[in-house]
Amino acid sequence: MEPKGARIGFVGLGVMGGPMAGHLISAGASLHVFTRTREKAKSVIEAGACWHETPAELARECDVVFTMVGYPKDVEEIYFGSDGLIANGRKGLLLVDTTTSRPDLARRIHEAARAAGLRALDAPVSGGDLGARNATLTIMVGGEREDFAEVEPLLRVLGKTVILQGPAGSGQHTKMANQIIIAGNLTGAIESMVYAQAAGLDPRRVLESVSSGSAGSWQLTSMMPRVLDGNFAPGFYAKHFLKDLRIALDSAKAMNVPLPLLELAERLFSLVEKEGKGELGTQVLYLLYKEGRI
Amino acid sequence: MEPKGARIGFVGLGVMGGPMAGHLISAGASLHVFTRTREKAKSVIEAGACWHETPAELARECDVVFTMVGYPKDVEEIYFGSDGLIANGRKGLLLVDTTTSRPDLARRIHEAARAAGLRALDAPVSGGDLGARNATLTIMVGGEREDFAEVEPLLRVLGKTVILQGPAGSGQHTKMANQIIIAGNLTGAIESMVYAQAAGLDPRRVLESVSSGSAGSWQLTSMMPRVLDGNFAPGFYAKHFLKDLRIALDSAKAMNVPLPLLELAERLFSLVEKEGKGELGTQVLYLLYKEGRI
Repeated sequence: MEPKGARIGFVGLGVMGGPMAGHLISAGASLHVFTRTREKAKSVIEAGACWHETPAELARECDVVFTMVGYPKDVEEIYFGSDGLIANGRKGLLLVDTTTSRPDLARRIHEAARAAGLRALDAPVSGGDLGARNATLTIMVGGEREDFAEVEPLLRVLGKTVILQGPAGSGQHTKMANQIIIAGNLTGAIESMVYAQAAGLDPRRVLESVSSGSAGSWQLTSMMPRVLDGNFAPGFYAKHFLKDLRIALDSAKAMNVPLPLLELAERLFSLVEKEGKGELGTQVLYLLYKEGRI
Repeated sequence: MEPKGARIGFVGLGVMGGPMAGHLISAGASLHVFTRTREKAKSVIEAGACWHETPAELARECDVVFTMVGYPKDVEEIYFGSDGLIANGRKGLLLVDTTTSRPDLARRIHEAARAAGLRALDAPVSGGDLGARNATLTIMVGGEREDFAEVEPLLRVLGKTVILQGPAGSGQHTKMANQIIIAGNLTGAIESMVYAQAAGLDPRRVLESVSSGSAGSWQLTSMMPRVLDGNFAPGFYAKHFLKDLRIALDSAKAMNVPLPLLELAERLFSLVEKEGKGELGTQVLYLLYKEGRI
């Protein structure tokens, strides 16, 4: 499906969904939008998007609907509510959930969509608000190959690395794998900075020694300078990372796979939230170490 | 001190020390060598190095002595033994320990050297056997600024990133910071692969999605393909990594800094050794997860 002229719905227009919807309009799509807070739709409506009062109303007008909401419970509501997408979509409607959400929920949506004569893909993204704005997201997709092929040109409007990972739920599982890696990279980087400072080293000089070798990582190079500048503004919200870690941990437990590093990270970010720091960026974990709260 | 014509000692000629000594000979140094297993000195002796029967004998002939041995106890013996470097070095001898060893031992060596009219730097390296062979090591130095300045041209023969990190012990502390980061990156990468496989994903395809973004790291890109190929040959020995993690943990405890990720990594690599896998590469930790030993 080419974006030009396609009737595309977009539900959820926050820091991620907003710019993604904007790219689809720029690519020539006829865009239909719904979001809980209508104010967030202002700029895309000005750019030509059509506003709907309910997901149901939107679903009836579209061939493809993207969703980018907050938590699994929001996904449930949008997909399974009486005013939701599955109950109201036309036959053949293709639903694409780009929210990072539960793999088992993605499979339930896939099944329910099929039973209703619709289709569904899970397609969570990584790359943050910057990736959304620059259309450089990585998009990890789960679902049927032919559905993926149909929507792939649209996904390539939104992201750079677009890969079908397997059947329904596989996109979410891949995103969980991504978050597990980040948990290790971020926590290790933070503990090294805390160690370096306790040892009386200059942590910036330490970064010069360790960043280019076998300790190198994106988290080290991009996040630790922010930490050392005292910049804890959210690139990615700690509370959302905690949500992801909990989904990953639930999945791992359901699969009977013990992952002690993931367990540790979930415990640490639970502390972050308990300390009232969930609205800051993931790098704020550093403050808990410095404040002796670990 | 320029390498050409300098009288340089090298103690320890294993996978790291061997190629490092070779570079110093190539740069024109007059090299004196000692190693526990004389056989390991064969190629550098053929290249022109002078063999000595004891560290004491070697120390008497040199202006600078490098050491690259295995464990802190080996360092203690070479430096503090009656046949060791400190008791037998000439006034002004500059001792450079490139072994990854205890920061507190580095400080003791520094003090004892000063008391004996000698000088000492701690200068552990990262970059592995490949970095040693290609002279691309990162060298993290602790000690006096003027001693560092004197030996810096020699260090630049051996490595690419050569940084004075602070007073005695700072080189070792920086290396510990490096190992803490690696512990997080490696463990996170391994847990993500284990998770991906349990979820029925193709882990190589997962790597395509996650390697270039905010989860990216050297450990992910360089080590996980080896893991998936079943290649557990040592780039870096698991038993040596365990040694490093224990040093880091001891230091952190002495500084009263709780580092739960480091504690977890020490526990995991203790299991690796207990399972008789210490002679394999660090990536062998993956097998313990797969075998349900975690």
